[in-house]
Amino acid sequence: MLDHFHGKDTWEIVERDDGFFMIGAGPDLYFAPFEEWREPEQKAMSHVRGRVLDIGCGAGRVALHLQGVGHEVVGIDISPAAVETCRLRGVVDARVMSLEEVDSSVGTFDTVVMLGGNLGLLGDQERGRRILTRLDGSTSNDALIIGASRDRTGSTDPDIVDYFSKNLAEGRLSGQGRIRIRYRRYVTPWFDFLRMTVDELRRLVAGTGWRLQETIRSDDTLYVAVLEKDR
Amino acid sequence: MLDHFHGKDTWEIVERDDGFFMIGAGPDLYFAPFEEWREPEQKAMSHVRGRVLDIGCGAGRVALHLQGVGHEVVGIDISPAAVETCRLRGVVDARVMSLEEVDSSVGTFDTVVMLGGNLGLLGDQERGRRILTRLDGSTSNDALIIGASRDRTGSTDPDIVDYFSKNLAEGRLSGQGRIRIRYRRYVTPWFDFLRMTVDELRRLVAGTGWRLQETIRSDDTLYVAVLEKDR
Repeated sequence: MLDHFHGKDTWEIVERDDGFFMIGAGPDLYFAPFEEWREPEQKAMSHVRGRVLDIGCGAGRVALHLQGVGHEVVGIDISPAAVETCRLRGVVDARVMSLEEVDSSVGTFDTVVMLGGNLGLLGDQERGRRILTRLDGSTSNDALIIGASRDRTGSTDPDIVDYFSKNLAEGRLSGQGRIRIRYRRYVTPWFDFLRMTVDELRRLVAGTGWRLQETIRSDDTLYVAVLEKDR
Repeated sequence: MLDHFHGKDTWEIVERDDGFFMIGAGPDLYFAPFEEWREPEQKAMSHVRGRVLDIGCGAGRVALHLQGVGHEVVGIDISPAAVETCRLRGVVDARVMSLEEVDSSVGTFDTVVMLGGNLGLLGDQERGRRILTRLDGSTSNDALIIGASRDRTGSTDPDIVDYFSKNLAEGRLSGQGRIRIRYRRYVTPWFDFLRMTVDELRRLVAGTGWRLQETIRSDDTLYVAVLEKDR
């Protein structure tokens, strides 16, 4: 995200473990002001309350918006360059921290946001359940998790359908993608990024301290899920 | 180039042998009508005469333009999908053929065009000289080669500067890039793609039957070279 390409627009490249490559998100998404967000993400912001944890804060679009309307926000991202970008753009509290490192040192939150597909960072069923259980402990009694994913079932794209079948045959969730992100000579480690149907999300969440309260859908595969405490 | 992605815009991904990735050209370039070409390429078309060989014809933008203004054109490309795209778009004579396979079976040409950076297909000094010498034999006495390249000297981009230094240390031409092209699950073999300064081109051409007649420059790194017979 830093200006390594002399101000030219740049996009991340997504490499899947079967040799499938695609162009990921670019500055249009990462730097989008609120008015340019997808509608389900805009609508979901009306649910945000109190102190906010922004997981995978990227270039800070969500943190900046929520700060701007008066919330105290902590943004975390495992990318030092993303966190530096957040700080340069005015995010007051941005930290290099993984989703798995969230503990009492960052305090207690009333809302956790995982927009931009960041529900995918739950990774797989086991990791997802572990993370949600921990987030239960880091949040207030009436806290919400607001997260975006994509429901790819119904796709006829052979590069998606074949991979889904392979996943199911290997006992993985259908939309579990083992990927790494490339940009110029940079490359991340391999990680699982999880796309879920709403039903899969509902099942994954069960027993973690959370339950699905509402989903906000778009006219394509994108949806935003609102999770509330399950008490 | 075929519609494998349900009509969505798609770009090729360029992988260099040092793990550097970048996004290559997309439909904006491959399908551009003449009015949208870069100015040096537009200007160069006034030099075209007689029967034309379009090397690396891609989706046919150059072949279609030249056919439209009355030239007989043979387009060649090593990509069967590119050639199929050309045919579907109306290129009368498009063939799956490598630059190294051009011989008397395709007849004699008055102009050879290598736009869209296709001078880069000369690959390296030795291959380039071999190809130019063969093209001398496949062309009429007053034939021209009209080809585009980029002069990257003067770049301060570390990903370019470092690679140039490595090339020179290995006895390669500075702008020789060992690359392969990826698109979804497709990947080409590795090949050398050669960016040259005008001086490097002039030296490479010497003794092959061709000489540099003119270069048409843009305000950035792009230039179009016109080669004429050296008699």
